[in-house]
Amino acid sequence: MHLPSKVTICEVGLRDGLQNEARILQTSEKLELANGLIAAGFKVIEIGSFMSPKAVPQMADTDKLFSLLHQIDGVELRALIANKKGIERAINCKCRKVKLNVSASRRHNLANLNRTPEESVAGFGEIVSLAVQHGIEVSGSISMPFGSPWEGNIPLESVQAIVEAYLEVGITEISLSDASGMAVPNKVYSVCSSMKESYPQVKWWLHFHNTRGMAMANILAAMQAGITRFDSSFGGLGGCPFVPGATGNVSSEDLVHMMDEMGIRTGIDIVRLIELARKVRHMVGHDTDSYILKAGRSKDLIRK
Amino acid sequence: MHLPSKVTICEVGLRDGLQNEARILQTSEKLELANGLIAAGFKVIEIGSFMSPKAVPQMADTDKLFSLLHQIDGVELRALIANKKGIERAINCKCRKVKLNVSASRRHNLANLNRTPEESVAGFGEIVSLAVQHGIEVSGSISMPFGSPWEGNIPLESVQAIVEAYLEVGITEISLSDASGMAVPNKVYSVCSSMKESYPQVKWWLHFHNTRGMAMANILAAMQAGITRFDSSFGGLGGCPFVPGATGNVSSEDLVHMMDEMGIRTGIDIVRLIELARKVRHMVGHDTDSYILKAGRSKDLIRK
Repeated sequence: MHLPSKVTICEVGLRDGLQNEARILQTSEKLELANGLIAAGFKVIEIGSFMSPKAVPQMADTDKLFSLLHQIDGVELRALIANKKGIERAINCKCRKVKLNVSASRRHNLANLNRTPEESVAGFGEIVSLAVQHGIEVSGSISMPFGSPWEGNIPLESVQAIVEAYLEVGITEISLSDASGMAVPNKVYSVCSSMKESYPQVKWWLHFHNTRGMAMANILAAMQAGITRFDSSFGGLGGCPFVPGATGNVSSEDLVHMMDEMGIRTGIDIVRLIELARKVRHMVGHDTDSYILKAGRSKDLIRK
Repeated sequence: MHLPSKVTICEVGLRDGLQNEARILQTSEKLELANGLIAAGFKVIEIGSFMSPKAVPQMADTDKLFSLLHQIDGVELRALIANKKGIERAINCKCRKVKLNVSASRRHNLANLNRTPEESVAGFGEIVSLAVQHGIEVSGSISMPFGSPWEGNIPLESVQAIVEAYLEVGITEISLSDASGMAVPNKVYSVCSSMKESYPQVKWWLHFHNTRGMAMANILAAMQAGITRFDSSFGGLGGCPFVPGATGNVSSEDLVHMMDEMGIRTGIDIVRLIELARKVRHMVGHDTDSYILKAGRSKDLIRK
């Protein structure tokens, strides 16, 4: 079984997790969580997003949070943005890394924005220029490359066209995001293998939701295709944008636990992470979709 | 990605699922579920166990259930047994298939039964003779071959010794059962690959609990090692014998859904299975650990 010896995990709970919560956390609580994540060893953390506070009130304090957070060498704190306004906010609060997003669904994009996904990405050129001028790094994400609610199957050529549009505007770090939870392991393996081969210059990320229980199997398949960067969310917070009440992102503690037990290094202290996930569960005020919070580590089961 | 074109799934919810439930189902309810499973296309079903009714009251009506069920060609209805009394009950109620079990943990077996796992299996010889005389097929299961709460790691040689003891008493159908939920994909792959190679005459089954969220990834790894037979439980019913409140067996509808979406045939009608899992959820009276019951199939998400 061909697997990497180490992987990088980005904690997205502060953004993709909390934006799905009814209770809006205080900035001080988020700060405590972000610092806890850094202390636990995370080197990449998605802190929030620069969207309209009316549309996503849970993320309204992202600017403030960036201002309060100490930038630490070797720790990347990123934010999701949607447009030029987002990059302006990033500049103002000294955020050094942003992520753009486009849907892989042509029908979705044409219906909502009257342009193809590639045209949307081409439109990001201005944002990238502004970012570069201010020393801000930009990455891109592609939603639903493994299947979408609009057309079902997404042809590989569609994903390739979006990747090429990203490369065209100077973005070489790309995330494949299964927000609808429709990805399956053999599809993940074939898409990732093809992408790795066609675009060796790209720094790939994979983002799985556990909507239909397949996230861990998909991550296993992605690792077999050579992918070593994964997003996850503490406590398994998050949701499926298309299914109210469905499970969210794959849980960070479940993922780090599996990696630990497989002998794949993450650089993350699972004990601290579990404590943090418990704190998150307490802050959001409800049980979350985390196996490790329920069952504990395999190691904890072994009698002394 | 080397995967089989079809797999066989055994529904164990009527036994491993319901034996963990506070509410004891009526025989008529179990009969309805068993007939529903047959109608949904299951060819192997674990109906119950012949244990002491005092120890496992949920399974006390297994004899009655077998008497009421119509034996159908090509559908195997099996029961778990622990001793000679079990095989006598099987004979009396016309059960045609039984399964024995032993723990892979030497410490566990020595402490509880004052004998090694191999000695326990050697003791099954009398049961096998009696079964054969009455035309009853016997299979064997090995609990915790991928790790145990007593010693942590289980050496491959220990598992081999148990397999050889089973072969010695004439049992060639063997299930590897991760009841403690400690298995991880690379361990599953290496153990299964080795077992397949060393004992090509064995008909292998894998039985995963989703205790730490790794069951689907483990099944993916097992398939890559050439395993094609898996246990699962409707609604994900069941538990971890060592962690009260932990998740149970991998959910049948989640597993069949993943296989369907991967293009791997199961012969099971997922729509009927989902209806049945909903019925089970209603009968036990609480929510269960099933992703598909929450999110629906990927196919259902696709807009017409």
